[in-house]
Amino acid sequence: MLTASLVVTEQESYFAYLFGVQEPGFYGAIDIASGDSILFAPRLPADYAVWLGEIKPASYFKESYMVSSVYYTDEIAKVLNQQYRGPGKPLLYLLHGLNTDSNNFSKPADFEGIDNFETDLNALHPILTECRVLKSAFELAVIQFANDISSEAHVEVMRKTKVGMKEYQLESMFLHHTYMYGGCRHCSYTCICATGSNSSVLHYGHAAAPNDRIFEDGDMALLDMGAEYHFYGSDITCSFPAVLLAHDAVISNMRPGVSWVDMHILAERTVLELLKKGNLLLGDVDAMVQERIGAVFIPHGLGHLLGIDTHDPGGYLKGAKRPKEPGLKSLRTSRELLEGMVITVEPGCYFIDALLLPAMENAQTSKFFNRHEISRFRGFGGVRIESDVYVGRDGCVNMTKCPRTLKDIEAVMAGAPWPINTTTIPAISSST
Amino acid sequence: MLTASLVVTEQESYFAYLFGVQEPGFYGAIDIASGDSILFAPRLPADYAVWLGEIKPASYFKESYMVSSVYYTDEIAKVLNQQYRGPGKPLLYLLHGLNTDSNNFSKPADFEGIDNFETDLNALHPILTECRVLKSAFELAVIQFANDISSEAHVEVMRKTKVGMKEYQLESMFLHHTYMYGGCRHCSYTCICATGSNSSVLHYGHAAAPNDRIFEDGDMALLDMGAEYHFYGSDITCSFPAVLLAHDAVISNMRPGVSWVDMHILAERTVLELLKKGNLLLGDVDAMVQERIGAVFIPHGLGHLLGIDTHDPGGYLKGAKRPKEPGLKSLRTSRELLEGMVITVEPGCYFIDALLLPAMENAQTSKFFNRHEISRFRGFGGVRIESDVYVGRDGCVNMTKCPRTLKDIEAVMAGAPWPINTTTIPAISSST
Repeated sequence: MLTASLVVTEQESYFAYLFGVQEPGFYGAIDIASGDSILFAPRLPADYAVWLGEIKPASYFKESYMVSSVYYTDEIAKVLNQQYRGPGKPLLYLLHGLNTDSNNFSKPADFEGIDNFETDLNALHPILTECRVLKSAFELAVIQFANDISSEAHVEVMRKTKVGMKEYQLESMFLHHTYMYGGCRHCSYTCICATGSNSSVLHYGHAAAPNDRIFEDGDMALLDMGAEYHFYGSDITCSFPAVLLAHDAVISNMRPGVSWVDMHILAERTVLELLKKGNLLLGDVDAMVQERIGAVFIPHGLGHLLGIDTHDPGGYLKGAKRPKEPGLKSLRTSRELLEGMVITVEPGCYFIDALLLPAMENAQTSKFFNRHEISRFRGFGGVRIESDVYVGRDGCVNMTKCPRTLKDIEAVMAGAPWPINTTTIPAISSST
Repeated sequence: MLTASLVVTEQESYFAYLFGVQEPGFYGAIDIASGDSILFAPRLPADYAVWLGEIKPASYFKESYMVSSVYYTDEIAKVLNQQYRGPGKPLLYLLHGLNTDSNNFSKPADFEGIDNFETDLNALHPILTECRVLKSAFELAVIQFANDISSEAHVEVMRKTKVGMKEYQLESMFLHHTYMYGGCRHCSYTCICATGSNSSVLHYGHAAAPNDRIFEDGDMALLDMGAEYHFYGSDITCSFPAVLLAHDAVISNMRPGVSWVDMHILAERTVLELLKKGNLLLGDVDAMVQERIGAVFIPHGLGHLLGIDTHDPGGYLKGAKRPKEPGLKSLRTSRELLEGMVITVEPGCYFIDALLLPAMENAQTSKFFNRHEISRFRGFGGVRIESDVYVGRDGCVNMTKCPRTLKDIEAVMAGAPWPINTTTIPAISSST
């Protein structure tokens, strides 16, 4: 095997995965033959000390980030050449690949003198992606911490929410709790604090719908909020527990080798049965699944890989086909579960006019809908329950510890204690 | 005069100034001859309704943003052609110019069919910039609101800060107060919560120095935090009131026609006199000013224009020369004050090794320093007091209402009430 170095560019999640550097402007390399890890720090101008703080020496970064050596970014070509001991030009594996969630390509590292190296843009991305799919015990500990403080913050919001508040006040309470008591400066994603009919807008809370409605008596609240800690995220939704049965059914069936598409259909089936029991739907549930009625009420996928990115990469391996059917096409992965994955389980049920009205008009599907009963739910919004679940060898562990049953939620809202200890290191052991 | 239209691009501060649109993807135009204002909304795909919310009709935007008409972005060329009633090709004034603070150029609007128009890239930017320099009564009301809620939040932080807290807990309390009670989702800039020696790092709090030190007994605290409301910002610093005399001297001398460079030197002189009185500096203060000793203790400019951008544009008119002297070269404007400006007044005094040690070594300047006394302040950090000030015809109005004197700060920290009413519309009248 050639002695070769790989280089990844600064400031994106693969770099955070390998090096965990919080300062901007760094490059990193790993010598595959020796295992040496090398960081390249930016050479800061003298007035950095006046405006931005002490200029830290290379030894500080070597110790903080536990790498073999630290140089400056203007030395990359020189250092990589010195590191190389084989014949011919040194070979650099650069990170370049498609993120199947964002559909964006990562930009390969570039530096002065890169022309003097052989480069490979293909090998690194899929390998590193699969490394990220299977979480180590260290990674699980950080994700568990983000889950613990976020679960605790959801409980705090349940306790303090009052009729008449603006939705963003719930968001503010969540952010404050996770930062003040958990040191989480950022969230994994923009908080979704949806009340009333907003709870059927799947990605509510963005700049054009900024959580600014007043929470009124009798309103549904759907709160999808998760804090980030040291690059790793959490992703948790609390709402009325109408879909708890689907959430629990999926978690109790998850294990290595199970297809995520099958889990999605299990969640759909559970929700459709509930709707039939409630007299909103009519007829045979198998036929409903066949006709994709589930996608009317659950237009999003059951869940997604979670880690440094809220939608962590690796959902579709190269060559894997994305399903085309309504509902299933929104799945962010169609893979079989593997031990070491962390994946969200987030079944929902929504009354969305843009989907319900066409389905009730459609000659093929109208027979399933009890229009009279469904009309009572128009404007009701939607519900979703979302937990972050670790896939273990013999079953899975729910890392999210929020009150889920109506009884528990009501107790917590009335001020009952909720047993969460944020300092616990999770008892999950990982083989990776 | 030609009937001509101007077009500005979406999602930056000049667009916010003209149209105040919070939804992304918009373009806007104003017909200079008729005064008609036109918004162009993005045509959203049908599944926007499922994921992001109701697709609002053009009439909604027309009413919300009080424009003459609303079309779609794929109709820009057609609509601008129809609007035009003169001979020849219609002329579009596009926004393109240097931001003298960031040194970035704004990107001119681009759209399909732009080749069929005459375009002018030079006229619009300086005119709009000068419009933004002079604030209207509506703008002042928003800036005042951001100042009121931020001042209140600073008071809240003073009350709740305890020895042993992490600096970011002070940041969290500030953010929570401004969002929970003021609806301010964003800050104008990253919060600077500096304690101990960090208080001499002018732009502390960034990702590589994320407010993570523990506040210890006897530490100086320098808190530079301001909330943003409906695009407009505030920018407020509270710390030990050592530089209050400089802050007050500047504010009482500000009026239309006064040079901001002179105000900076007034602040410097006041601080140098205090340091001389404290026996840290020796000799003649005029000579110190001449030798730029002020820049050792105040390396940043006295203040900057404030509005939609925290460092609002217009600091240097085209052709204006930036001063070259130490300290003065950091000024973000060297203009004379005009009625209608809002500008920050933020004198400070810092003990920064990177500046002090060379100045004490220098043959020309070493005579001014009492090394023994100064050595006692190494590691002490720095202080800064910052208020947002409106320049009125007959003097100026301090829009920031924080406790400033030692007596007031100590009273507030002990729980005394502080008289701020956040719902007040400011009593400032503007001629613009």
